[in-house]
Amino acid sequence: MNTLFYSRHLVHPVTLLSVAHGDKENIAAMSWVSALSRNPPLLMVAVSPKRYSHQLLLDSQEFAINILKDNQNELSTLAGTHSGRNENKWESEPFRKLRKTATKIGVPVLKDCLAVFECKLEQHIPTGDHTLFVGEIVHSESQTEANPLVLFNRQYFQLGNFVSKYP
Amino acid sequence: MNTLFYSRHLVHPVTLLSVAHGDKENIAAMSWVSALSRNPPLLMVAVSPKRYSHQLLLDSQEFAINILKDNQNELSTLAGTHSGRNENKWESEPFRKLRKTATKIGVPVLKDCLAVFECKLEQHIPTGDHTLFVGEIVHSESQTEANPLVLFNRQYFQLGNFVSKYP
Repeated sequence: MNTLFYSRHLVHPVTLLSVAHGDKENIAAMSWVSALSRNPPLLMVAVSPKRYSHQLLLDSQEFAINILKDNQNELSTLAGTHSGRNENKWESEPFRKLRKTATKIGVPVLKDCLAVFECKLEQHIPTGDHTLFVGEIVHSESQTEANPLVLFNRQYFQLGNFVSKYP
Repeated sequence: MNTLFYSRHLVHPVTLLSVAHGDKENIAAMSWVSALSRNPPLLMVAVSPKRYSHQLLLDSQEFAINILKDNQNELSTLAGTHSGRNENKWESEPFRKLRKTATKIGVPVLKDCLAVFECKLEQHIPTGDHTLFVGEIVHSESQTEANPLVLFNRQYFQLGNFVSKYP
């Protein structure tokens, strides 16, 4: 196996990273997202320095992760195929109608998705060709009846059959 | 929402961490695993300092991540409900019959699973109540026809319906 494509063998959540600083804002597709700590509640997102969101996140020191539902694949594709350098994606119809203000940080978030985690940047670490951003969750909202969109092998899937409970 | 349970809203891969040092070895269930970098190929696993694997990993500076298939939930449950402090899980029947030697590092790995990533520890960072271990993948193997086991809301699932391709 070519290690270049190793991440295709991992299932990933499908999320949108929301950042804002001054009069700049962006919403970007991110799947290298994981939990890191329960207490304090920390999560990570790995962002390439090439991405427009990278500097905005460093400047603002805060961000939100919006977890997408299994019928929101088009939002991820829209965010993932346009750069915030060229246009403000929040001004496009799909995002404009879902926009709301976060509770504890100064970024827009989605009013309808599986969950929103509002984070303060706790640290950032260079890791290869990405920067690992660690955020402390200062506020979160979620929908209990929603199902997540899953990314695997560069394809979106719904969650499938229940297998068993984790012990 | 209680932030304590925020990770329930993220889908996670179901993996087994394999570590060995001297005459000690362990295989442990880990789901806080993510890709971090393509070049070099880096991945992360978050491990609590309370876990038996934590010190073994620091001592040996290498580890393997075994990604489980959707019919291997019992391996995860077995690894997740027993501590390597009390017994060597590799000596139990389910693991003994799947054991093989890794190619480039000195740990046992699974001969049948979705993928195996053999890693050299690149750095480790304290993040809240876990330690974030960053590994560089030095060898990997995978099965192209296999489907992954998915963890969501403390339950195992199969992958479900295909939705669309990631652009």
